[in-house]
Amino acid sequence: MIFRQLFDRDSCTYTYLLGDASTGRAVLIDPVIELVDRDLQFVAELGLTLAVSLDTHVHADHVTAASVLKERTGCAIAYPSSGEAEGPCMALDHGDVLQVDAIKLLVRHTPGHTAGSATYVLGDQSMAFTGDTLLIRGCGRTDFQGGSAQTLYASVHEQIFSLPDTTLLYPGHDYKGRTVTTVGEEKIHNPRLGGGRTVEQFAEIMANLNLAYPKKIDVAVPANRQLGATAK
Amino acid sequence: MIFRQLFDRDSCTYTYLLGDASTGRAVLIDPVIELVDRDLQFVAELGLTLAVSLDTHVHADHVTAASVLKERTGCAIAYPSSGEAEGPCMALDHGDVLQVDAIKLLVRHTPGHTAGSATYVLGDQSMAFTGDTLLIRGCGRTDFQGGSAQTLYASVHEQIFSLPDTTLLYPGHDYKGRTVTTVGEEKIHNPRLGGGRTVEQFAEIMANLNLAYPKKIDVAVPANRQLGATAK
Repeated sequence: MIFRQLFDRDSCTYTYLLGDASTGRAVLIDPVIELVDRDLQFVAELGLTLAVSLDTHVHADHVTAASVLKERTGCAIAYPSSGEAEGPCMALDHGDVLQVDAIKLLVRHTPGHTAGSATYVLGDQSMAFTGDTLLIRGCGRTDFQGGSAQTLYASVHEQIFSLPDTTLLYPGHDYKGRTVTTVGEEKIHNPRLGGGRTVEQFAEIMANLNLAYPKKIDVAVPANRQLGATAK
Repeated sequence: MIFRQLFDRDSCTYTYLLGDASTGRAVLIDPVIELVDRDLQFVAELGLTLAVSLDTHVHADHVTAASVLKERTGCAIAYPSSGEAEGPCMALDHGDVLQVDAIKLLVRHTPGHTAGSATYVLGDQSMAFTGDTLLIRGCGRTDFQGGSAQTLYASVHEQIFSLPDTTLLYPGHDYKGRTVTTVGEEKIHNPRLGGGRTVEQFAEIMANLNLAYPKKIDVAVPANRQLGATAK
C-alpha cells in the first residue's frame, strides 16, 4: 500500500492518500478544495488513479474537494450516511466496508463532533482515520452540527479505544505540528478523554472551552452539505 | 523503533524523533528551539529518554534546540564535522555510524546547501533524513554558507539517488504540506535534480531562483554555530 499524509497549513487539515501499489487505484480522505492540484499531482506522479474521495464528516473549517475531484477524475464520492451530506454520493453505514482493491476501510460511526462523523479503520487495524472525533491529545469541539460531549465520549471509548493499543491514529487536524498518535498513547495521555476521565469530567471540560465561533462555518457547512459542489 | 515526524508551522521545519522501543533511548533530528516543550512532552509520554540531539547542518531559518535539550535532559549533541558548528559536540564524519541502541544512522556528507550538510541514512536503508540537501520536488538553496549548485548536484546523485528507489526520504522542510518522498520519485519527478537533468541545467535553475534574503539568517546562523546556546 502507498500511504501519504498531506497537510493544509491554512486550516491545519490532514488529507490522506491511500493507494493500492499493484492496481494503482487510490482513495483520498478529507481532501481540501484549495489543494486539489497538489493532491492530484501526487496521485499522478505515484502512478495512481483516484477511485474514491472520502470524507469523515461535514467539515466546518474548510470545504471538501470531493466534487472538484469527481469532476476532474471521475472518482466516486463517499460520506457517512448521516443525512448531513445532501449531494449524490455513496452513503456509508456503521459496519460497512469501503474496499478499493487491497485497501479495505471499515466504517465506524463515531458521532459527537458532528452527528454523522465516522472513523475509518484499515482492515488489519494498523491504522485508523479519526477525523475530528479524536485528535492528538485532544478532540473536535462538540458545540455545533449536532455535537454532543456525551456522545463523543461514548464514540471514542467504544469505537476507537477498543482498537489495539498499537493502532496508529491519523487525525483530521493538528495545530501543533504533530502527525500521528496511537490508541495506547491517547488512552493514557489524552487530557480530555484519557487517563480514566469520566464522561462527566469530559462534559465539563468541553462546556468550558470558550471557543470562538468558527470563522468559515457559515460558508463551509452549506458548501460541504453539497459535497463542495457550490464552492467550485 | 518508535518514529515520529513533527512540524514547525513558522519555519516549516520537520523534526524527527527516533526511539528504540525496548531500551527507551531516543534521537531528535533537527529540533527547533521554540518547540522544545512539545518535543520533550512527546519523548516523555512515549516512555523515552533523549540520548542525542542531532542536526543535519547549521540552519539559516531557525535556531536549533540542541543546547536547550542538552541543558534539560543531559543528551549529547551531534553535528556533521564541517567546522560550521563551533560549540562542544560530537563531530560526525562521512562514513561514521551514529548508533543509539537499535537506531543506527549512517552519516553521508552531502555538501551543497551548506558546506557541511549531512544526510543520515537508517541502517536498513528504509529511510533517510536529507536535511535541506534534497527536499520533496525541490532542494535547499545554494547561494550562501558555502553553498554550491555543482556540489549539491553531486551530493544528491552520488549519496542519495544511489540509495534504493524505495528508501523513504524525510526532508528538513516542506512548504506545501507534503511529508515524505522516495528516492524513486525524486529521481523521476524532482523538477530541479531529477528527470535526467544535467548539472549545467541544475546550476542554471539555481542561479535564477531570485530568492529573498533569508529573514532570520543573521540571527540563526551565529546562534546555530554555537549549537543554539546563545539563543536560550
